[in-house]
Amino acid sequence: MATNPVENASETTPALNTPSTTPTPLTLLGLGAMGTALAGAWLAAGHPLTVWNRTAARAEGLAARGAAVAATAAEAVAANRLVVVCLLDDASVPAALDGVDLTGKDLVNLVTSTPAQARARAAWAEERGARYLDGGIMAVPPMIGVPATGAYVFYSGSSELFEEHGATLAVPAGTRYVGADAGYAALHDVALLSGMYGMFAGIAHAFALVRGEDVAPSELAPLLGGWLAAMSGSVARTAEQLESGDYTQGVVSNLAMQVAGRQTLLSTAEEQGVSAELLEPYFRLMERRLEIGGGEEDLTGVVDLLRR
Amino acid sequence: MATNPVENASETTPALNTPSTTPTPLTLLGLGAMGTALAGAWLAAGHPLTVWNRTAARAEGLAARGAAVAATAAEAVAANRLVVVCLLDDASVPAALDGVDLTGKDLVNLVTSTPAQARARAAWAEERGARYLDGGIMAVPPMIGVPATGAYVFYSGSSELFEEHGATLAVPAGTRYVGADAGYAALHDVALLSGMYGMFAGIAHAFALVRGEDVAPSELAPLLGGWLAAMSGSVARTAEQLESGDYTQGVVSNLAMQVAGRQTLLSTAEEQGVSAELLEPYFRLMERRLEIGGGEEDLTGVVDLLRR
Repeated sequence: MATNPVENASETTPALNTPSTTPTPLTLLGLGAMGTALAGAWLAAGHPLTVWNRTAARAEGLAARGAAVAATAAEAVAANRLVVVCLLDDASVPAALDGVDLTGKDLVNLVTSTPAQARARAAWAEERGARYLDGGIMAVPPMIGVPATGAYVFYSGSSELFEEHGATLAVPAGTRYVGADAGYAALHDVALLSGMYGMFAGIAHAFALVRGEDVAPSELAPLLGGWLAAMSGSVARTAEQLESGDYTQGVVSNLAMQVAGRQTLLSTAEEQGVSAELLEPYFRLMERRLEIGGGEEDLTGVVDLLRR
Repeated sequence: MATNPVENASETTPALNTPSTTPTPLTLLGLGAMGTALAGAWLAAGHPLTVWNRTAARAEGLAARGAAVAATAAEAVAANRLVVVCLLDDASVPAALDGVDLTGKDLVNLVTSTPAQARARAAWAEERGARYLDGGIMAVPPMIGVPATGAYVFYSGSSELFEEHGATLAVPAGTRYVGADAGYAALHDVALLSGMYGMFAGIAHAFALVRGEDVAPSELAPLLGGWLAAMSGSVARTAEQLESGDYTQGVVSNLAMQVAGRQTLLSTAEEQGVSAELLEPYFRLMERRLEIGGGEEDLTGVVDLLRR
């Protein structure tokens, strides 16, 4: 049975960044690494917190820090209006909550989802009388509750819910509200992660090139990292070109030149005994765009070739 | 016939960043967009400059700014000890210089090359009695001579040449000497460009995901750019892991979790009508590494799978 969360929390000291109003009580479902990190941040900021996890043992440490531990998901949901869900995946949400009364609840779903899953989950929650906000966490657990890491969460869905609980949601990490469409938090989350994996692929290729040479990875790293950080600024020009539809706008090295230049990269990979499999798909799209007349453009036309 | 470069240059005003000693006279072969930008920077800094280009008309603007224009490559090379080459490609170098006396010259080759081409060109130059330095330019022409852009050039080869002429070489862009192996400038150059194309592939995928949605590319751009810049810092951890051989060192999200998480990215691409061809090769390598037991590792094992 849940102990009274307000009593427990009254013993904790509010963090400096907590507003002077009484911290909002809330419920958190799911105590994996991320849920546990979130719970710790809310407890540290003096929020009365009720937690539930399928495996109850994971709540012990949080109970010692003042969290109320609910015996069932229904009991946890009943304890507070604001209910944050941080379960394993989308299927875990109805598994935990089907049959639980969500009437009048403010449901914040931080489960990793596709945009379509998030939209369907929003409809599911609204049918059950809840307001719904979806979140996409741009952080790993050690970054939670540490503002200097720049960790933040994309939110989309009910703007009323976000306005009412924005301060509470901002306790563990920064917040970015990206629209009423419940799928947009996931869409932004996946877009950024997809961009990141592309960059990771490029980084892997770069390190592979210098393996076996007298070049220490730790010498290459700051050069590579600095270069990628500088070149990440090109997204602004890409965005302008996508919006204007003029892919030659502000071009500094046109597609024809870059297609010609790719051969040095491919030959170097060959010389160094490195498979070019991570670079070739992008080069093929550059070549296709050149073939259909994009030689004077920037690389932005590749975006269009990806759309089926 | 070349006019006396020292006479011409005596009329120009040294730039503020020029050392108090007399600026070193030098020769530049090749006046494409990059060569012309380099020439402009040296002229602006008061360096007596002799230029040659296969198509002489390209030298006219520089002549008006004080450059001596040589009628032949041989004449240009004869004019100065320091000779910078910025021709189209590696094959252009012997095409321009075979038969030209290079004895005692300091040859700086900025032509885009593979590491093997650079090493062979170094041997070719040394056989002809020249000291050789190879360069890889990490900039586009508009960045040359503008220190705020952070543009720089990798150099490798003769450390004596670099020490003697480092100040002159630093006029158009920053310098990074990366070793006596003449191929290392090209190796570093190609490594950074390869990383960049990987990142560009990720960026293209990210923008493709939001096409057709009510998400402006210019709203996504700063989020995506900021995220990539932040995540580019992961190269330091990758380097440490490659050096220690322990790919579990400091892992924040292990390979098994990331392989599981990739499905959300693939499903989202499918939902949004976007081909995942730019992400799939990296995910396949992650899966292969997981299959051979790398589940507890970071993503660094992919580097090993790229080596043939």
